[in-house]
Amino acid sequence: MGSASDINKILSETAQVDEASIQPLPNSEKVYLEGSDPSIQVPVREISLADTPTDFGGEKNAPVRVYDTSGPYTDPAVTIDLRKGLAEVRTPWIEARGDCEVLEQNSSVFANERLDAPELAKLRFDLKRKPRRAKAGKNVSQLHYARQGIITPEMEYIAIRENMARAAAAEQGLLERQHEGESFGASIPKEITPEFVRSEVARGRAVIPLNINHPEVEPMIIGRNFLVKINGNIGNSALGSSIEEEVEKLTWGTRWGADTVMDLSTGKNIHETREWIIRNSHVPIGTVPIYQALEKVNGVAEDLTWEIFRDTLIEQAEQGVDYFTIHAGVLLRYVPLTAKRVTGIVSRGGSIMAKWCLAHHKENFLYTHFDEICDIMKAYDVTFSLGDGLRPGSIADGNDEAQFGELETLGELTKIAWKHDVQCFIEGPGHVPMHMIKENMDKQIEECHEAPFYTLGPLTTDIAPGYDHITSGIGAAMIGWYGCAMLCYVTPKEHLGLPNKDDVKTGIITYKIAAHAADLAKGHPGAQLRDDALSKARFEFRWEDQFNLGLDPDTARSYHDETLPKDSAKVAHFCSMCGPKFCSMKISQEVRDYAAENGTEITPLEDGEEQIVKMIDVKAEMEQKAQEFREQGAEIYSKV
Amino acid sequence: MGSASDINKILSETAQVDEASIQPLPNSEKVYLEGSDPSIQVPVREISLADTPTDFGGEKNAPVRVYDTSGPYTDPAVTIDLRKGLAEVRTPWIEARGDCEVLEQNSSVFANERLDAPELAKLRFDLKRKPRRAKAGKNVSQLHYARQGIITPEMEYIAIRENMARAAAAEQGLLERQHEGESFGASIPKEITPEFVRSEVARGRAVIPLNINHPEVEPMIIGRNFLVKINGNIGNSALGSSIEEEVEKLTWGTRWGADTVMDLSTGKNIHETREWIIRNSHVPIGTVPIYQALEKVNGVAEDLTWEIFRDTLIEQAEQGVDYFTIHAGVLLRYVPLTAKRVTGIVSRGGSIMAKWCLAHHKENFLYTHFDEICDIMKAYDVTFSLGDGLRPGSIADGNDEAQFGELETLGELTKIAWKHDVQCFIEGPGHVPMHMIKENMDKQIEECHEAPFYTLGPLTTDIAPGYDHITSGIGAAMIGWYGCAMLCYVTPKEHLGLPNKDDVKTGIITYKIAAHAADLAKGHPGAQLRDDALSKARFEFRWEDQFNLGLDPDTARSYHDETLPKDSAKVAHFCSMCGPKFCSMKISQEVRDYAAENGTEITPLEDGEEQIVKMIDVKAEMEQKAQEFREQGAEIYSKV
Repeated sequence: MGSASDINKILSETAQVDEASIQPLPNSEKVYLEGSDPSIQVPVREISLADTPTDFGGEKNAPVRVYDTSGPYTDPAVTIDLRKGLAEVRTPWIEARGDCEVLEQNSSVFANERLDAPELAKLRFDLKRKPRRAKAGKNVSQLHYARQGIITPEMEYIAIRENMARAAAAEQGLLERQHEGESFGASIPKEITPEFVRSEVARGRAVIPLNINHPEVEPMIIGRNFLVKINGNIGNSALGSSIEEEVEKLTWGTRWGADTVMDLSTGKNIHETREWIIRNSHVPIGTVPIYQALEKVNGVAEDLTWEIFRDTLIEQAEQGVDYFTIHAGVLLRYVPLTAKRVTGIVSRGGSIMAKWCLAHHKENFLYTHFDEICDIMKAYDVTFSLGDGLRPGSIADGNDEAQFGELETLGELTKIAWKHDVQCFIEGPGHVPMHMIKENMDKQIEECHEAPFYTLGPLTTDIAPGYDHITSGIGAAMIGWYGCAMLCYVTPKEHLGLPNKDDVKTGIITYKIAAHAADLAKGHPGAQLRDDALSKARFEFRWEDQFNLGLDPDTARSYHDETLPKDSAKVAHFCSMCGPKFCSMKISQEVRDYAAENGTEITPLEDGEEQIVKMIDVKAEMEQKAQEFREQGAEIYSKV
Repeated sequence: MGSASDINKILSETAQVDEASIQPLPNSEKVYLEGSDPSIQVPVREISLADTPTDFGGEKNAPVRVYDTSGPYTDPAVTIDLRKGLAEVRTPWIEARGDCEVLEQNSSVFANERLDAPELAKLRFDLKRKPRRAKAGKNVSQLHYARQGIITPEMEYIAIRENMARAAAAEQGLLERQHEGESFGASIPKEITPEFVRSEVARGRAVIPLNINHPEVEPMIIGRNFLVKINGNIGNSALGSSIEEEVEKLTWGTRWGADTVMDLSTGKNIHETREWIIRNSHVPIGTVPIYQALEKVNGVAEDLTWEIFRDTLIEQAEQGVDYFTIHAGVLLRYVPLTAKRVTGIVSRGGSIMAKWCLAHHKENFLYTHFDEICDIMKAYDVTFSLGDGLRPGSIADGNDEAQFGELETLGELTKIAWKHDVQCFIEGPGHVPMHMIKENMDKQIEECHEAPFYTLGPLTTDIAPGYDHITSGIGAAMIGWYGCAMLCYVTPKEHLGLPNKDDVKTGIITYKIAAHAADLAKGHPGAQLRDDALSKARFEFRWEDQFNLGLDPDTARSYHDETLPKDSAKVAHFCSMCGPKFCSMKISQEVRDYAAENGTEITPLEDGEEQIVKMIDVKAEMEQKAQEFREQGAEIYSKV
């Protein structure tokens, strides 16, 4: 990745998106599923598979369609130009509703200052259009529409996207063969319809984070009756990284599976960096506005005011941020509960607000101004991510009074947000030992009235710095299973430094694993389709298909090629772990072939032994086959 | 690591152990805890910590003692010579019992052939002593002693080893502060006494895998009322790796935490490779004898006979293998149950036996000769690891009839082993979605009468080749929590190739995380001590202590150093993620300091707010401090 001196590169005429992020994934094609209107074009990635080798049956294998977060970047038909940003998928839908207006200029004082500063010209994304805002008295949130019984194009888009694997599994008659799952009271339907999407949003049990000023987004949903989502964090800090690097992390992170991206920048030029990110992002972008507000008061928490914060919210809402983390639950009375903790307050936003509360001996202004914040949110359809400012930062502090006190307040705030028809989800911990994870989920569902939960991990032990993607991936998979709707990734650099591109990828893949393991455990219909296709490919030694169906084909392929020579080995009917003689898959295929060749229907019943008699009569024939294999084996690699 | 051509290196006069494996871990000292007899010297790793910086309180931090699997290799006082092997810790204890005899020559025909072959001289470990065997009519198993009420030195050694963290936590008055855990009916005591060890072994709920011909072992225990253990697999295959590489993987794997090591070699010179491994191993070694037996019949499963297998058992038992995986539960009637699976039979041992059963239309000879196998086991104290030959190889096949049918048979065999006073544990899956993991554990406890469970993962999804240490680490942590006693590691190369040294380390660290997360969740007293010490170090910006208390200090340190300059940053009171202004730990320390300086006892009660009033009166003073900080911040790094 480039250094800070590359900032200008992005602005030059020849600025290019990261080449590594725009290659289609191997054997994959971008397919668009059309909705009831031609403007609804839902992207999916279709992975083509080879036929089963003749000696394993020779059948065709249907291509596998997977949920695609990689956006226009992996569509060879789309020309990417970072300076122009992405196409505005949603603009016609937003305009058709007729409930918002285009402003003559930004409503934020700060935004206008930045736009007027000539020295920033070279940093600025050149946005031609003006921001939109709800007309006076209007509410443009998806929750508001849902409650009026309106199914928006966004909802239909999401229904097609979420239902895709189910539809494929149903079509192939595979749904019955999949495990049922244990959903802990979630209401996962067999089919996701647009009406189901609407009803879940209306109920507050799911959110669609989509600012009207971010029309580039491919709509997605967060809720426990839908597929588990993951978030990747990016953002520069005072200590480094350029705008270009952040955009590169965005395209790289979504390539590998980030469903949303949070821009946690705290360094220079936050406003301009964010503009570049949003204009080039096809996934919802979240921020923590208090970080930027604090920059505006030179890092002195006590100097923060409601007015500065309010202007920051408007500034970011008019840029198109889709969800805001707001630490409105850090109440004055909870702060002393943290003093005896092993690790105090570890949330940046939480500690800023705690310091402000103590310094002024006043209640948190985010709490006291919550209604006014709601008014801003609904004018742009920004979704609340109610921040867990008092989340535990160590196993010792897990599930303590401070954490659960704040959660109760977040539940109270959820009701206020809903009163305003503002979408809302809840952030959660943090560091929690495995046996205390379910209590977090259950309490959150109860206290926050089933608003979606969005957790960071949780990390299940503190003793592995350098491996916290794994300590937290364990907790993330579990809480996802229990009902958490979105998992915030943790990279190997957590607690140690800022993640680079490799770390981002490792974090994303780890969290895709957690989310998918949770989908399987919850019993999302169709989720198992990809596992089954990959396992079948593995069993049939279709190496390329095994790689391509995996979350990271490149790594799988390179690991394979490390121990076996490239071309010959990938068609070999064994693998490098055991060599040709010991291949159990080969032996069990022989058993199966035998049954098939002899027309023996093997039903595993009491009379199993009798059936075997038929199977093994032809030992001689098997000997013959074994002999053939040995002869082939002498050259080690048998071509398919 | 070396290539196959390095085989001779290990045999030369200058052969050296892998340098990377014999350095003591940073800031760590090998300490020996003495038992009731001076011959009982239990190794622990003591990690020294820095004092808390003055502005955080300035107190001393007690060193932290951790369970140490790295053996004599990390003791600078021990001279390692691979050609001589390790010291015989247990010989005096074995001899004192007077129930075994030294044989004049090996009892295995094959072993004697290998010893007599002059062309193997250059490959052979030069063992001076002869094998031991129980005297006629004697049983030398730890289970046999335990049932007679005898507490062996091995049991006392284990009690000291398992109790170490508890004792430290109790001494420091920290046990009450730790989470209680949820143990699902396990009976984890507050203190591990030698008598408790004996009673658990006698009950069959724990095993001590210790062949009398492997006196080099530092005794350890596997059982669900003890710390969760992990196994690392090594072993060459027909396709590569040398003897020296395998020994290097052994010392490397145990350095990072392997409690036992399985030698799964299937390639050349299995007998000689194993000798080198065992003579240089301070941890119990497991094998799958059927692999070698199959080599003896040139890979033709049908040609296997009980006689060849029996001779292999004796050959390996007299070398000192501590536990044998025996696939005696793969019964003829279960084989057809696998024909409709997505991935058939994926266990190598399982598929070999399935093929044999079908070819001969006879019951599995391991099952029909099980009593005779027990007679061999008890003559050397080899422990059964009853193999799960029909474990599922894909999510689709998880918890099916074949798997659970075999498990029932393993329960039947457990009772037979116990009738012989032979130690026994049970292998488990495999690939299982999260919601079906607990059923595995519960069924195993019920069917196998609480004999310890030992699982491979399980992998919670099939879709991430290249990351199966993570897909399986999730399942391993969960099943460890539910009661699984030992977790067999999976490396990133699983399904793709043979692991190299980096893969071994990654697999081991991932599984240490899983095992420790399970220990925390089960509520092992004292397990949280290391988490708490590390989190305290993290909170106080004692970077070096944070690294050194972690499972992998080297990786943590190098990740940190990537984004901050080395020396200055490691004493900085902030980290590279946020920079100086946004450091939440700093802010919460300020809150805490403030309370301390003003003598305000902050008890989190209803009157919390009133107390805060006292705290925040001196806002001016905090401003002063903030000012000071800003001035220091100008030079960015403040020295402690």
